[in-house]
Amino acid sequence: MRTAARMDDTPIEVPRGLANVVVTETELSDVRGREGFYHYRQYSATDLARTRSVEDVWHLLLDGHLPDARERAAFAARIAHDSRLDAGLRAALPTIAAAAPAGCAAPVDGLAGLRAGLALEGVRAGLSPLFDLTPEQRRADLIALAAKAPTIVAALHRLRQGRAPVEPRHGLGYVANYLYMLHDRMPEPSVVEALSVYLVAAIDHGFNASTFTARVIASTGSDAASCLVGALGSLSGPLHGGAPSRALDTLDAIGSADRIDGWITARLTAGERIMGFGHPVYRTEDPRSALLKEVALRFGGPRVEFAVAVEERVPVLLEQYKPGRELHTNLEWYAAIVMELCGIERELFTPTFAVARILGWTANVLEQAADPKIIRPSARYVGPPAPQPLPSI
Amino acid sequence: MRTAARMDDTPIEVPRGLANVVVTETELSDVRGREGFYHYRQYSATDLARTRSVEDVWHLLLDGHLPDARERAAFAARIAHDSRLDAGLRAALPTIAAAAPAGCAAPVDGLAGLRAGLALEGVRAGLSPLFDLTPEQRRADLIALAAKAPTIVAALHRLRQGRAPVEPRHGLGYVANYLYMLHDRMPEPSVVEALSVYLVAAIDHGFNASTFTARVIASTGSDAASCLVGALGSLSGPLHGGAPSRALDTLDAIGSADRIDGWITARLTAGERIMGFGHPVYRTEDPRSALLKEVALRFGGPRVEFAVAVEERVPVLLEQYKPGRELHTNLEWYAAIVMELCGIERELFTPTFAVARILGWTANVLEQAADPKIIRPSARYVGPPAPQPLPSI
Repeated sequence: MRTAARMDDTPIEVPRGLANVVVTETELSDVRGREGFYHYRQYSATDLARTRSVEDVWHLLLDGHLPDARERAAFAARIAHDSRLDAGLRAALPTIAAAAPAGCAAPVDGLAGLRAGLALEGVRAGLSPLFDLTPEQRRADLIALAAKAPTIVAALHRLRQGRAPVEPRHGLGYVANYLYMLHDRMPEPSVVEALSVYLVAAIDHGFNASTFTARVIASTGSDAASCLVGALGSLSGPLHGGAPSRALDTLDAIGSADRIDGWITARLTAGERIMGFGHPVYRTEDPRSALLKEVALRFGGPRVEFAVAVEERVPVLLEQYKPGRELHTNLEWYAAIVMELCGIERELFTPTFAVARILGWTANVLEQAADPKIIRPSARYVGPPAPQPLPSI
Repeated sequence: MRTAARMDDTPIEVPRGLANVVVTETELSDVRGREGFYHYRQYSATDLARTRSVEDVWHLLLDGHLPDARERAAFAARIAHDSRLDAGLRAALPTIAAAAPAGCAAPVDGLAGLRAGLALEGVRAGLSPLFDLTPEQRRADLIALAAKAPTIVAALHRLRQGRAPVEPRHGLGYVANYLYMLHDRMPEPSVVEALSVYLVAAIDHGFNASTFTARVIASTGSDAASCLVGALGSLSGPLHGGAPSRALDTLDAIGSADRIDGWITARLTAGERIMGFGHPVYRTEDPRSALLKEVALRFGGPRVEFAVAVEERVPVLLEQYKPGRELHTNLEWYAAIVMELCGIERELFTPTFAVARILGWTANVLEQAADPKIIRPSARYVGPPAPQPLPSI
């Protein structure tokens, strides 16, 4: 029975945007900005990205430990099963693909399709509120939705190109299957490995805005689709880091190695942001950037050399304009290069990021749902005093 | 250019669930729990509900003032235009309606359909991020989506009943049109008036979890559909007040006037919640409950008398079990009665609530988007220390 229970309702003042406000405890992950380090559970995230599969790391986040051989096989079987779309959803995808207007803003576009697909799957599955479910049922709902994300992204992409969707292929892992469904051919092992490093590195990253959104929705007790669909909404926001294709726009705008200094100097002089550089949390190099640079250098080639050259010139030129300031590449810079090397089209960069980050959201929703307390802050009314008499009509 | 700018990242401790934490300033509305009073802008919300149309109050919240005659006509024309569904969305609705499984949890069900419809409309409209738009364009996007909510809810409801959707009718207002599209007949003026009181009273109510969700998503700069679809996700959570049909379940469970005392006493003894009673903010009577009781009494009849009888017995019996505790009816109690009297089916109670609340979200999103600061709190990592060496596979 709920009665008026709150004893003290004095407003609590905090920094704008809730910066540094501790909204929950978590056992999932953390980012240590000063150290240039982030981790999933007790393991370095970059170590995991170098050595473990997406499935292993998803299992680690969901269940608290890396899987043993038996758990790995069971988890793979479940993902394989859940990655297949029900006939009803499959039949609806052409409607979603056809709905998107030509030439609309790419990052929102691809995510909007995934969002509509998962919203529709939420209807189809008739999901119950998380608070009415056992932890096992919640986990099952979350896996069933997230496992469909690569399938939906790939199918919508192909439908928009006028091609038939490709069903998930039995025996392929999460990353290989995504590439297979996108391109309708078996991907090169080196490509699967490279994309896997990126996706594992992108699964989670502290308490970002989309993860927070997922947890706010979960805190109301809502269903799994509500949480993931809402988080996708936040992810599509320009202030939420993720628009890796913009990093390639920077390379395109520079054009060639001899124009690097002039282009960068012009941007620095104008005080404009350079896409692919800078991160609000890291004071040092972004560990994800260093990791993906490794991956890019393994491929090599003129594109990679160009990206490295730009990366090296920015701090040199910045030192002349703003001595003492640091500016490092962030996740976007080499993520864009790696995705390009893996043959992923630019308009798929953000949806591909989402295909990784959604796995982190599932673990966050599961953790949040175990803690039945609604997240409901307050606002300060600063309009004219009320009540004032209503004017006559 | 964004560089590492935050000087101090000491964690800030606040109450669980961010209770009383001031996340933003607002000129839109406020709830004064101690006084049993809430307002939209500078006017009493219950005064507005008694005397003004949904459109007038939506205009007040969006634009800061009640419309004059010219503004009222222009706003009505815009809503009439925007309430019509594009052929692409109309064609997709049977897919959404058919997707819902029979017998799934009703409150989530109806909202899930609206969510999928708006997500699809977001794809179709090719919405740009709010941060790339002028305030006028943001307002236009938000109105275009929210104006379609009643049309989508009504169409999906009719499709699930095997009936053809009814298009909005020119010249009818927001409330009359909703009833007309649901039932394919001109509604009685008394019914329109009663439902209008409820819907105006439900448009906004302080910084609740769905409004907060809409604002978090808006703070990333995402598009209008992202914000509204995410907020619908929170609204479907059982901890987010809104499940008015449960109040009728209470009446059904009691059955008749002679069983009131026995039933309530059993619940109180078991320490169970009585649906339709209690609110986390109001210490007094919920002003929305008093308002809707007025409306219900205007209809009269045995159902209303029964509801009043239960309302009167609960505090009397509570005083015997928990002396000094107060327990009042909340919005749900008489909202359910009023909707039932208006001929709205139970499975539509929560979607009907959403058809009102979405209007409040539009004003909140518009206000949030004017303030380009991402809402991004923090979490405290409490898992095992990291990094630990990775086990071999």
